[in-house]
Amino acid sequence: MRLSRYFLPVLKETPSEAQIASHRLMLRAGMIKQASAGIYSWLPLGFKVLRKLENIVHEEQMRAGHIPMLMPTIQSADLWRESGRYDDYGEEMLRIRDRHDRDMLYGPTNEELITDIFRAHVGSYKDLPLTLYHIQWKFRDEIRPRFGVMRGREFYMKDGYNFDLSKEDALHAYNRHLVSYLRTYERMGLQAIPMRADGGPIGGDYTHEFLVLAETGESEVFYDSEITDLRFGEREIDYDSVEQCQAVLEEFTSRYARTDETHDEVIFNEVPEARRRSARGIEVGQIFYFGTKYSEPLGATVQGPDGKPVPVHMGSHGIGVSRLVGAIIEASHDENGIIWPEGVTPFHAGIVNLKQGDAEADAACEALYASLTALGLEPLYDDRDERAGGKFATMDLIGLPWRITVGPRGLKNGVVELTSRKTGESEEMPPEKAIEKIAEIYAPHHRSVAVEPMAQRSFHTWL
Amino acid sequence: MRLSRYFLPVLKETPSEAQIASHRLMLRAGMIKQASAGIYSWLPLGFKVLRKLENIVHEEQMRAGHIPMLMPTIQSADLWRESGRYDDYGEEMLRIRDRHDRDMLYGPTNEELITDIFRAHVGSYKDLPLTLYHIQWKFRDEIRPRFGVMRGREFYMKDGYNFDLSKEDALHAYNRHLVSYLRTYERMGLQAIPMRADGGPIGGDYTHEFLVLAETGESEVFYDSEITDLRFGEREIDYDSVEQCQAVLEEFTSRYARTDETHDEVIFNEVPEARRRSARGIEVGQIFYFGTKYSEPLGATVQGPDGKPVPVHMGSHGIGVSRLVGAIIEASHDENGIIWPEGVTPFHAGIVNLKQGDAEADAACEALYASLTALGLEPLYDDRDERAGGKFATMDLIGLPWRITVGPRGLKNGVVELTSRKTGESEEMPPEKAIEKIAEIYAPHHRSVAVEPMAQRSFHTWL
Repeated sequence: MRLSRYFLPVLKETPSEAQIASHRLMLRAGMIKQASAGIYSWLPLGFKVLRKLENIVHEEQMRAGHIPMLMPTIQSADLWRESGRYDDYGEEMLRIRDRHDRDMLYGPTNEELITDIFRAHVGSYKDLPLTLYHIQWKFRDEIRPRFGVMRGREFYMKDGYNFDLSKEDALHAYNRHLVSYLRTYERMGLQAIPMRADGGPIGGDYTHEFLVLAETGESEVFYDSEITDLRFGEREIDYDSVEQCQAVLEEFTSRYARTDETHDEVIFNEVPEARRRSARGIEVGQIFYFGTKYSEPLGATVQGPDGKPVPVHMGSHGIGVSRLVGAIIEASHDENGIIWPEGVTPFHAGIVNLKQGDAEADAACEALYASLTALGLEPLYDDRDERAGGKFATMDLIGLPWRITVGPRGLKNGVVELTSRKTGESEEMPPEKAIEKIAEIYAPHHRSVAVEPMAQRSFHTWL
Repeated sequence: MRLSRYFLPVLKETPSEAQIASHRLMLRAGMIKQASAGIYSWLPLGFKVLRKLENIVHEEQMRAGHIPMLMPTIQSADLWRESGRYDDYGEEMLRIRDRHDRDMLYGPTNEELITDIFRAHVGSYKDLPLTLYHIQWKFRDEIRPRFGVMRGREFYMKDGYNFDLSKEDALHAYNRHLVSYLRTYERMGLQAIPMRADGGPIGGDYTHEFLVLAETGESEVFYDSEITDLRFGEREIDYDSVEQCQAVLEEFTSRYARTDETHDEVIFNEVPEARRRSARGIEVGQIFYFGTKYSEPLGATVQGPDGKPVPVHMGSHGIGVSRLVGAIIEASHDENGIIWPEGVTPFHAGIVNLKQGDAEADAACEALYASLTALGLEPLYDDRDERAGGKFATMDLIGLPWRITVGPRGLKNGVVELTSRKTGESEEMPPEKAIEKIAEIYAPHHRSVAVEPMAQRSFHTWL
């Protein structure tokens, strides 16, 4: 993308309404604009990141064998009366009356609707196990929306639902979700720690929240410091294997890690003092097993192997996709702006032309642009007729991990400059070498998305 | 995908509430389930098609230089009061009051919101031309929703908005949209004819609707039969070229083609009688130029080259993405089910195992599955233990363009059967030959999406 043809309305002033870094930086980098309290338009740069996160979530869910679908935003109140939850949500539920005076609502979650689909179409234990999920806009009418997309009213969320014949099978689904979530967050450059949590209005006997440590987090958390050394990494996993998924759950949840809702001083004090930590965290996901809580009132039963009807065991599993954009920025920024992890960066590299209009510099930038594009990477070329200082400030603010700086002086010596946004370190090298380095840097990210050989795979086949 | 692990709840009975083929077939093929009147859940197969259409729209819009972003579904009433349209929409607008008693609404379209973004961020003619678009859920509270997704209440739509300094520039944007829409529909296997139309509540001096001819269409249309011979085809176009875009507009709109809203018998009668046609059509898109209708009341001005403020010239341009799923089926089905065009099919080929459990047949199916997958194609393998007749009926119903049938008898002679859904013709050939043919068939579709070389392109870079 050439910046002269893009829409990137960066702000010079820091907006006064923004209290935390991610909110400030998303506004300043031209990623979002508030439409109403707690409701945002995603400007092109913000939408690009949101879409990348969405794709990562889709890929990891499909890898785990979960099936994508899409439920609507507006639901009928009837199903919620049937489950008994119509009043539970209180004023946070956006209630709507349509032109025929029917009670509707903007879905804050989808246990009722998915259970209704299940009971209409699935009748036999032979159709289990089944996990369906979608990524859809939701609405919670927060009394005091704040922190930008971190606590908005309209938000984008992945929610998935498993249907199993027994508690044992449902707990395998629970573990499978835990594994897929660990992979998902790591691909986004985040460490999200599963912590024992409280069920809230969803309910549930087993539930873990995934928390990203950050000073601005809303939750107080307590954990054994050993847990931050754990990485899922590149290990291969068979999602059908009960043992493998169970082992990952044990590895990642056996140490003390709880939110304040479930914190227990007595147990915590058994952790050696040097490893006891309290900190703040941002919740970016939660998994639940809640048994037959919805299947019983809603009549979601299947015929078991013995011919008798059995209410299915369910769980639900959420990832806050729009919130993650903010969480990633909270975890990765400095005083000059955002620092995108390579897995989610909106553009792979920035190209800064120090002397727009200089024939040689222009040609070198165009050649770099063409080479990166031919590799399947997306560069952002700042081709505006602006001073170098302004171009650098914009690149730092929007946080692309790598910048190539091209100027007449360097070109005389046959070099351009490659700069890491994270370390600030620069290195001069021939343009071909810079391309080669960037291709190398992104190769693992390309590989990690390739479930099948990428050679002839086109994006229109991915879903 | 293996059918035993998928969620494809096909119905044997024809649902009585469905009056038209697409609605019936989408229900029967397990693509959608009604959640409330005019509001649908997209089951996995339906969601897959919806997502393919969405991706085609994104690709063609980006190819034309238009910039993707995303506006929210819930809007404040204030902006609509400012534009004077709050009352225009009447009861079709879903009005909502939030917990703080603020008037909100579920956006039926986004002229106000996009203009608000524009006026907040763009100040100079140097930032023009600019075209922003998004694909987002919309709501129109139809009094009698019907025909499934063709006239639903919650629907998925691409709407784009151009901002230009002059009428002349804005008309180039209009033409550019027309070209990009022609390409979009052809990639979906549709012929959509641009017809002179009426502005309706959007307004506009220039507007064309795109109509797909179909008996079940809601609009009566009148046209010169020569128009149905036109194809955009594989021609290259420079979207920056005023001349090239204008030439396409003239080619596709100079013959008589109007909806009943703008039909004029006198002009129509100038078409030679043998070429005069009246028929029914399904509207799948509309483009508008409406000058300063929104920029003036909302104060969307830029500083012109002479330093004076100028209200920008705008247009808006929509494609009904969810409606297109129905329109494609209306245009392409038979008594046995859907017939997907290759560009939008949810799976590229079906594999039918005539004797599940037979070691040789199972192995041959697995090998075909692996080969197609390695080519970047997505097969749907019916690996259920069912009779051949049931498997064929399901494949015909869900409409995959190609089916490979594998059975012990054929394998003895080293052959499988390749069947075209469209023609019903079957041919026996060795499995490798079937793979080769399918790879050839889909090669143009792969090519057509490749703006850049596909070799190393991964889907996480596409947006």
